[in-house]
Amino acid sequence: MIQVAILGYGTVGSGVYEVLKTNRDSIKEKTGDEIHVKYVLDLRDFPGDPVEEVLVHDYEKIISDPDVDIVVEVMGGVEPAHTFAKRALEAGKSVATSNKAMVAQCGVELSKIAREKNINFLFEASCGGGIPIIRPLNNALTAEVIDEITGILNGTTNYMLYKMSTEGCDFDEVLKEAQEKGYAEADPTADIEGHDVCRKIAILSSLAYGKFVDFQEIPTEGITKITAMDMKYAKELGMTVKLLGTSRKVGDQVYAQVAPYLVGPSSQLYSVNDVFNGIFVHGNMLGDAMFYGSGAGKLPTASAVVADIIEEAKNLNKNVMYGLSEEKMDLMSVDNVEERYFVRHQGTEKDVEAVFGNVEQVVEGIVDGEIGFITWKMTYGEFQKKVEELGKVAQTIRVKD
Amino acid sequence: MIQVAILGYGTVGSGVYEVLKTNRDSIKEKTGDEIHVKYVLDLRDFPGDPVEEVLVHDYEKIISDPDVDIVVEVMGGVEPAHTFAKRALEAGKSVATSNKAMVAQCGVELSKIAREKNINFLFEASCGGGIPIIRPLNNALTAEVIDEITGILNGTTNYMLYKMSTEGCDFDEVLKEAQEKGYAEADPTADIEGHDVCRKIAILSSLAYGKFVDFQEIPTEGITKITAMDMKYAKELGMTVKLLGTSRKVGDQVYAQVAPYLVGPSSQLYSVNDVFNGIFVHGNMLGDAMFYGSGAGKLPTASAVVADIIEEAKNLNKNVMYGLSEEKMDLMSVDNVEERYFVRHQGTEKDVEAVFGNVEQVVEGIVDGEIGFITWKMTYGEFQKKVEELGKVAQTIRVKD
Repeated sequence: MIQVAILGYGTVGSGVYEVLKTNRDSIKEKTGDEIHVKYVLDLRDFPGDPVEEVLVHDYEKIISDPDVDIVVEVMGGVEPAHTFAKRALEAGKSVATSNKAMVAQCGVELSKIAREKNINFLFEASCGGGIPIIRPLNNALTAEVIDEITGILNGTTNYMLYKMSTEGCDFDEVLKEAQEKGYAEADPTADIEGHDVCRKIAILSSLAYGKFVDFQEIPTEGITKITAMDMKYAKELGMTVKLLGTSRKVGDQVYAQVAPYLVGPSSQLYSVNDVFNGIFVHGNMLGDAMFYGSGAGKLPTASAVVADIIEEAKNLNKNVMYGLSEEKMDLMSVDNVEERYFVRHQGTEKDVEAVFGNVEQVVEGIVDGEIGFITWKMTYGEFQKKVEELGKVAQTIRVKD
Repeated sequence: MIQVAILGYGTVGSGVYEVLKTNRDSIKEKTGDEIHVKYVLDLRDFPGDPVEEVLVHDYEKIISDPDVDIVVEVMGGVEPAHTFAKRALEAGKSVATSNKAMVAQCGVELSKIAREKNINFLFEASCGGGIPIIRPLNNALTAEVIDEITGILNGTTNYMLYKMSTEGCDFDEVLKEAQEKGYAEADPTADIEGHDVCRKIAILSSLAYGKFVDFQEIPTEGITKITAMDMKYAKELGMTVKLLGTSRKVGDQVYAQVAPYLVGPSSQLYSVNDVFNGIFVHGNMLGDAMFYGSGAGKLPTASAVVADIIEEAKNLNKNVMYGLSEEKMDLMSVDNVEERYFVRHQGTEKDVEAVFGNVEQVVEGIVDGEIGFITWKMTYGEFQKKVEELGKVAQTIRVKD
């Protein structure tokens, strides 16, 4: 029997408890052993809940119990999650977590301890919720040299952008609706400002390129500036707006970026709608691949955590992850990256041509006296200069190729 | 150093050789050891090719060499591939294969030998080419009880249907073009009659539901009956036609089926175009997920084979697959499955209403005197009766919900 302790009985924690219970038989068969929740740690009480019998308020009880094989950290936030996870690993207990903030900040340290102890620190649920993406990067795409990873990694903002696109609502309106539906939190900053995506693309990039990408160095832009009017232009262009976390090899260098992008139907990410997530990967042998599914939600996220628990249960004394390298990645500046850009300019096509030359994909008549267009490929630095020269620019959005 | 023998230097075999060479450094890092191709078996000679130095014509040389750790079977066909793979496993050598025909027919036996010998029989490339799908089913979606798996599993037919849909060409024309481009073989039967998809959905279903699904029991229909006219109707309905391999739980039972389906944009499979493959999975906790990528082609397929080699190299004395169960799945009859159907009837809406009641999604005016419509959900048995009653039916195609 494998003994597990769950830290935190919130949304994901109670989901983990439920998945282990609902799919008990098939999980037992796949693990070759029974997985038993010996403790659930939470500061709160849950009178009447079946978890009551195993509920503890003091972490010392868990860490000092030699029977506990696996600690499941699903509290969220960096502390005390990090301290708890670290102590568990140092005590020889494998750790599974869904906590992207902790993984992005402390994953290198925790992976290293796991390697040294020949146990495991797994974090499948930290990116893409229920979508298997960490594990494919770790043990399926191993023959690949990956040169791009681009994802719709946040269900809340994807839902919001989808609503803005299909129903023409404006940002504030759709945010309020998302909060009422429980898709967005009371303080939605981490989602709408792109911080959540930033941590996720940092983790995925670290695994894809084999060097640690510091999330604090990734230029991050949220969706707060996107309007219903932008969506009208996008639609007219046969495109839509998505918040992307992306990183790409350019020669020997790698850049990473979080920003809203115009995405056209030639990209598989175009049809990733509603609260779903999609993660596009390009490998030098494989070409294009995409992983699609529920990027958030209690049970999908819990399902990914439980998959980690099963893998740890099957490898109690064997480190199975390459994990996060200690070697740091020096990111190239996004100012030197060549992209195309969508621009809304309060002026005429003649003004635009004077600065940008002959542009294609011009849209007029959506806003009086305004013209929308997509530039040719140029570096962001170059683009910024031209925008300044053009003047009267109401909006600029990157375009995903 | 891990010693590998490649059986067959055709498209996939030479791809495996190329992937191992091109990505040598990163593969070595991920394996923790160098992978060296000691032998390539082929009946042909390849004068001037670098493979010449390691080329052998006699399998005995490989099987009797105790240094060979891993045998890569990429010859295709059931025999002698099966005998070679079996002998390798019995000699304690792990086997990696891309050969769906052999896996569908002999996978249970070979998996069993691998388990008994505590080595590995891996076949990631047998389904979905370069798309990681076997491994996610085996070690990522382990917390799930899977209740549906539906895929576009054949690049050749997907390309053909895509061309018919976008360019309005007819079947024979597009088949000829596909053959000229090298997408379809001189004898295209296995692709266009659905036999290839049948083997793949049998393998995937066996892994998803934990019991062996015999490909010979899966009702299989190809795309030869699909016309450019059907595509016009599909477009009018906002849908398209895809060849799907599908299996689904209905209560305690499972059915499997290969057939062309009308697919609408609410399905992620709708936008899987050209030679790409997409595999949709539904789990009881995860909900919807999809895996998308290159389903065929030399390098993507080889990349999946090499991922198997790497996993086997890292687990020389540990069986890591659940593999294919010996317990056989009794499939339920597709006649009892409830679906919707598209019908082309040479008559009027009134005739249709007399038999099918009030139908929605009616299309007229594409062919003179003909009406197209989609039925309500009913069993295939029921549907067949109504079609007979209606008469003058030019075409029927299943509709994917």
